[in-house]
Amino acid sequence: MLRFLTAGESHGPGLVAFLEGLPAGVPITEAAIREDLARRQVGYGRGGRMKIETDYAVLQTGVRHGMTMAGAPIAMLIENRDHTTGNGPDGKPWTHTMNNEPVQGEVTPIHRLRPGHADTAGINKYSSEDARDILERSSARESAARVAAGAICRAFLRQFGVEVHSHVLNIGGVQAIRPDVIDWDATEKSEVRCADAVASESMKQAIDDAREAGDSLGGVMEVIATGLPIGLGTHAQWDLKLSTKLMASVGSVNAVKGVEFGEGFELGDLRGSLVHDVIKPLDEWAKNPDGSWVQPWPRRSNKAGGLEGGMTNGEPLVIRAVVKPIATIINPLPSVDLTTGDLEQAHYERSDITFVPACGVIAEAMVMITLADAFLEKFAGDHLDETKRNYKAYMATLGPKHTSAKA
Amino acid sequence: MLRFLTAGESHGPGLVAFLEGLPAGVPITEAAIREDLARRQVGYGRGGRMKIETDYAVLQTGVRHGMTMAGAPIAMLIENRDHTTGNGPDGKPWTHTMNNEPVQGEVTPIHRLRPGHADTAGINKYSSEDARDILERSSARESAARVAAGAICRAFLRQFGVEVHSHVLNIGGVQAIRPDVIDWDATEKSEVRCADAVASESMKQAIDDAREAGDSLGGVMEVIATGLPIGLGTHAQWDLKLSTKLMASVGSVNAVKGVEFGEGFELGDLRGSLVHDVIKPLDEWAKNPDGSWVQPWPRRSNKAGGLEGGMTNGEPLVIRAVVKPIATIINPLPSVDLTTGDLEQAHYERSDITFVPACGVIAEAMVMITLADAFLEKFAGDHLDETKRNYKAYMATLGPKHTSAKA
Amino acid sequence: MLRFLTAGESHGPGLVAFLEGLPAGVPITEAAIREDLARRQVGYGRGGRMKIETDYAVLQTGVRHGMTMAGAPIAMLIENRDHTTGNGPDGKPWTHTMNNEPVQGEVTPIHRLRPGHADTAGINKYSSEDARDILERSSARESAARVAAGAICRAFLRQFGVEVHSHVLNIGGVQAIRPDVIDWDATEKSEVRCADAVASESMKQAIDDAREAGDSLGGVMEVIATGLPIGLGTHAQWDLKLSTKLMASVGSVNAVKGVEFGEGFELGDLRGSLVHDVIKPLDEWAKNPDGSWVQPWPRRSNKAGGLEGGMTNGEPLVIRAVVKPIATIINPLPSVDLTTGDLEQAHYERSDITFVPACGVIAEAMVMITLADAFLEKFAGDHLDETKRNYKAYMATLGPKHTSAKA
Amino acid sequence: MLRFLTAGESHGPGLVAFLEGLPAGVPITEAAIREDLARRQVGYGRGGRMKIETDYAVLQTGVRHGMTMAGAPIAMLIENRDHTTGNGPDGKPWTHTMNNEPVQGEVTPIHRLRPGHADTAGINKYSSEDARDILERSSARESAARVAAGAICRAFLRQFGVEVHSHVLNIGGVQAIRPDVIDWDATEKSEVRCADAVASESMKQAIDDAREAGDSLGGVMEVIATGLPIGLGTHAQWDLKLSTKLMASVGSVNAVKGVEFGEGFELGDLRGSLVHDVIKPLDEWAKNPDGSWVQPWPRRSNKAGGLEGGMTNGEPLVIRAVVKPIATIINPLPSVDLTTGDLEQAHYERSDITFVPACGVIAEAMVMITLADAFLEKFAGDHLDETKRNYKAYMATLGPKHTSAKA
Repeated sequence: MLRFLTAGESHGPGLVAFLEGLPAGVPITEAAIREDLARRQVGYGRGGRMKIETDYAVLQTGVRHGMTMAGAPIAMLIENRDHTTGNGPDGKPWTHTMNNEPVQGEVTPIHRLRPGHADTAGINKYSSEDARDILERSSARESAARVAAGAICRAFLRQFGVEVHSHVLNIGGVQAIRPDVIDWDATEKSEVRCADAVASESMKQAIDDAREAGDSLGGVMEVIATGLPIGLGTHAQWDLKLSTKLMASVGSVNAVKGVEFGEGFELGDLRGSLVHDVIKPLDEWAKNPDGSWVQPWPRRSNKAGGLEGGMTNGEPLVIRAVVKPIATIINPLPSVDLTTGDLEQAHYERSDITFVPACGVIAEAMVMITLADAFLEKFAGDHLDETKRNYKAYMATLGPKHTSAKA
Repeated sequence: MLRFLTAGESHGPGLVAFLEGLPAGVPITEAAIREDLARRQVGYGRGGRMKIETDYAVLQTGVRHGMTMAGAPIAMLIENRDHTTGNGPDGKPWTHTMNNEPVQGEVTPIHRLRPGHADTAGINKYSSEDARDILERSSARESAARVAAGAICRAFLRQFGVEVHSHVLNIGGVQAIRPDVIDWDATEKSEVRCADAVASESMKQAIDDAREAGDSLGGVMEVIATGLPIGLGTHAQWDLKLSTKLMASVGSVNAVKGVEFGEGFELGDLRGSLVHDVIKPLDEWAKNPDGSWVQPWPRRSNKAGGLEGGMTNGEPLVIRAVVKPIATIINPLPSVDLTTGDLEQAHYERSDITFVPACGVIAEAMVMITLADAFLEKFAGDHLDETKRNYKAYMATLGPKHTSAKA
Repeated sequence: MLRFLTAGESHGPGLVAFLEGLPAGVPITEAAIREDLARRQVGYGRGGRMKIETDYAVLQTGVRHGMTMAGAPIAMLIENRDHTTGNGPDGKPWTHTMNNEPVQGEVTPIHRLRPGHADTAGINKYSSEDARDILERSSARESAARVAAGAICRAFLRQFGVEVHSHVLNIGGVQAIRPDVIDWDATEKSEVRCADAVASESMKQAIDDAREAGDSLGGVMEVIATGLPIGLGTHAQWDLKLSTKLMASVGSVNAVKGVEFGEGFELGDLRGSLVHDVIKPLDEWAKNPDGSWVQPWPRRSNKAGGLEGGMTNGEPLVIRAVVKPIATIINPLPSVDLTTGDLEQAHYERSDITFVPACGVIAEAMVMITLADAFLEKFAGDHLDETKRNYKAYMATLGPKHTSAKA
Repeated sequence: MLRFLTAGESHGPGLVAFLEGLPAGVPITEAAIREDLARRQVGYGRGGRMKIETDYAVLQTGVRHGMTMAGAPIAMLIENRDHTTGNGPDGKPWTHTMNNEPVQGEVTPIHRLRPGHADTAGINKYSSEDARDILERSSARESAARVAAGAICRAFLRQFGVEVHSHVLNIGGVQAIRPDVIDWDATEKSEVRCADAVASESMKQAIDDAREAGDSLGGVMEVIATGLPIGLGTHAQWDLKLSTKLMASVGSVNAVKGVEFGEGFELGDLRGSLVHDVIKPLDEWAKNPDGSWVQPWPRRSNKAGGLEGGMTNGEPLVIRAVVKPIATIINPLPSVDLTTGDLEQAHYERSDITFVPACGVIAEAMVMITLADAFLEKFAGDHLDETKRNYKAYMATLGPKHTSAKA
């Protein structure tokens, strides 16, 4: 069982990612993690902070000589450079505003609530008179820790031929056309992480327009995982279904307000005969050079997005999520003062116009963490060799057991 | 912490629902549970089974004299009448096909896989040559146990003025118009559990058409919970957010392929200034007769569906889910034989045309279980009186602490 | 991951055991479960109830034709015959006193607290004025559900050559001498489940004496598991150690006040050089006929009780627990009335003189549930064949990898 | 729900403690944590490392201006000074031997297994040929992270008048006499953390003797928690009992081989009438100045160690644990080479003669973490004020509800 947790505030000393349960022997380096962290930081429409921070996750524990250590939990530290170098409210350094020890001198609280944020619910729940007590933790900055942990799970999944990508389908109403085959290299180069070059330009324009209007944008991104074996997850209990776990992990990404698999909400409009993914008969299955099946029980379509009955069916996993527009906007919304209830403008703290592209990278991370867990649930293994051995032995059992009567 | 689990097969002796963690003193009767079970069984487009079974949940443990007992886990039994009275494959009684002990005589296996079901992934994962080993557990029948547990959580939540309803928004492409105020009594009487009387009739027609075509339909349903206090859930950790937990619990309902909150996927098309729910200033807040706030920090809109930053914000919780068309269809899809990979028609086991209305009731149950857990996380309490005491003391702290400078 | 939970009261309709997570294909019958249930019911010094109830666990779910079904959770029902046939307080049937629905007529509450029981803490915690609300669930009757679940895990563990036994070492101060090799058949026949025939007689005498004195006795029992592979559990996190989990599961048995492994508390008196279990060099290892090791890295002693660093080391697992004397005694202790605080005699509800022998059987069950979980954590497997395949592949990797330089 | 996890190796960059779930507003400073860390480092019989490291836990996240922040998980970093300043095997710096990145030049593996350590099971389980892969994580160094987290829980518990202490009862067979009232200040000053001054001297002598003999010692320590309210924990489910959780958390401390509550294993020798803790009648209860009960339902004795039916009963919690002698001894035990199985002496890595006193401090930490969790389970609260409010309201309900008929 994988355990994944994060800690850390947006302007505190830094973030901590905790990841436990990978087998020993998985090759990991800080450089590989940094690649994914960098992918989270790009994206047209990001604000100034992305220029301040070039995230670096230090493998503080659990990795030795480039390999996960026997059973050892991995903790990573990601420094907030802003904390030591930057200034917060009233020009005071963040080491004042966010010191873990009591400080001399006044600390400026945030009293103006920001609709769309955790602020309002948070100050009530936690009985606080400073919205910073909430927003520092609810900040999207936390997602860097998720991406770092996801990068480690990527290294694990790659050992089994699993690749996980994301692309953007919609920003602010600009819809991309999803090509039949996505060129992932080109998508990585798109400033909005969109596979449709024409839509990419329109999205950038929409972002520019929104910036000019002092506004923000949301959108839709899609995560696709290929190379998954049939039979991850289970149908047997509501909370053990892989679909349940993916809903939870992708749905946990900040600002996500909806998640769907495969054809998703469009399935409500269609008849069953058009929806279910017909299985190809044996004589259409492809073989690997070694005689094993490329994919047993392949389908003619993938409207289910690779999940049936809470399990992978061998087709690519396809998950989409919608991200609401950033709640911090340059022309703040009307709001109220949390101490008095008086009408105010919402507090503005430096922010982006949109982070849909980044959300794709974050969603990838959550998908990878969930899939790595599902792999270990199915194949176990305390060393990568053992996981691989169990995996291979399982794969060899798949496909029909009997000679066809027709043959 | 609530723990909720189910056990049981579709044609075995029955289902078991396990629910643990409610405080003592919550009033529960089998009659109240039966009401919700009956709501799950209605719905235009259901097959013959609904006539065989009138579900009855027996409170086997955990309840004494109509009240939850101190700490005692609740186990409920729901008999499958089919098991003892009906016949399964080859006209053999279900007590043969589904006996828990070895039986004399042949047992007819299911070899023809059904696309859209757990069958294909399941027989591979579990190394089975009889799809019945999978479909008996992956059957929607299991949802009766969820509804029974949900009914108990409803009794708990009502103690705090929380009401949870569902209605159908789409069946097979027939879209309902959501009225500003939903007439829940009328919705309960609709054969498709739809609040739009005109759409209801069109939905029934669509179901009739699908039946005639030997096909099935999916759709979209919505769950609405009112009366929730501000501050359930948390922003603090990915897996503890209430949004994460609701995504998981509603997403775990059989056939659900997408879940969204509030404006959901439409939020991808809109600018931030149009999306976030502006807070009313103090002078617009309503008071209860006793001087307390009807709802602190009320909003001018509810596009967030009552959730911000993983917490309730005091507005109604609004969750929608899409249900794919039933995978078992009268004119079976092409499929393959699991033992040989030969082309076959899919196996047909008696089924419904659609169960979108029932899915609304099931989703209600999952929402109520999740909300009851969130209540207990926030207010604890080993007896209902204690939960109420803690709840009231919290509610009394809400709202601005200071007199307005303007006053 | 195994999940094991129980529900049910002592005089309610019955108990429910919930067990989830075993692979498919494990052979299980009600008869096998009944054997363990019967072992729990014997024992010199038991009261009248053991004659009323002959426990029978009905496999309500999760088992088909004598085998665990794919992924399906197992729920078992154990009827309390007392509930329907017997009378409770004031001669009223238990169906009155313990009805799950409200009843007409008075229900006699228990106001006199019983020191040593959950009563006092429970009525405060749960705000109850009837100690029955607590004692019905805290009763040792619940252990029947544990034993039923344990019996299923026994069937699983036996597939890997693991055998789990228990014997009694002390009742009321009568200490048994532990023979070098325990004759388990003889131990099973001992009325006090003691391997020392002489001590058995003294224990029975002590029980008779205690009965005559209107008193009760505790004692010490030991569970031994053989055939465990090296490497179950882990050293890597405090809550994942097998030692942690065994402490918890054995420590959870009613009335247990201490748990120890191997030489246990005596290790406090000894120097390290006398305590640690020296590993035999390769030339002393025994081989199976097929050339594999009978046990890699065998030891000259087993003072650690088979656990080092939170993992099994291949030696037999040895766990002891102390059970306090039964708190319900014929000559009740002084106590108080929970409604007034007045001095009273404690309430007496029919009970045993001692149940140390039964506790051994219950502790076996908890050990087996924990070990089955540890097996699945290490070897996974969705069908027993897969678990076995992974197990065998692991076992084949053990032992030194290199030819000795000395050879 | 508290979540507590650690990460980190003995000679890696440092340790990380993760603690989540405390309410906001709990006063915490690094200085307070340091006090407990220092207590872990003292103790007659420790080796050289204690002089190298003066542990300091940095509050990296979750604390702002000396208070826990709203919902924010706490991560602490404890540097291993040895890592950057010291040398490991072959005189190479630890930054070579324990680098998280691949290094140039040979890394000296540990091939000689150490009986009593995790080494043997670990290298098999994790398929390693370097026992360092195991021992770095299984090292007692990890306990510093536990003590840091425990110190935070101490700060929380003190808000409710709960105090947690430990003392040593036995080192290497030298038994202390437990005084009726323990002088905790004197005990803190004892070099062996023993409340019996005479035994303290004998223990030190025993340690000196063991050092001279190149040997090591174990012993027994006891943790006592006072000020606990009645009703923490529950009787209702095996894994939710406070006794279960304490068994697990104290049993998880490295080298612990047995845990007992109250009179523990001696209860096996006694009759029930001598064992159970009689409740005092109301007229003997003491009152606080404000009219509330000092302790409702007080007892005449505390043989149960404050736990009945898995719950606190209001009496002091008393837990003892036995620690086996340190497995690393100066005159190494015979052992084998893990690569060949050849006879060798065990590997010696710098170690202590005994750490029983430190184990008391570590066990305190585990008890405090468990108790803080039990507090939050019972009283919840997102801010300390809320937890206190719920606590006080509960405490006010305790005691008899009715006027005595006798009065």
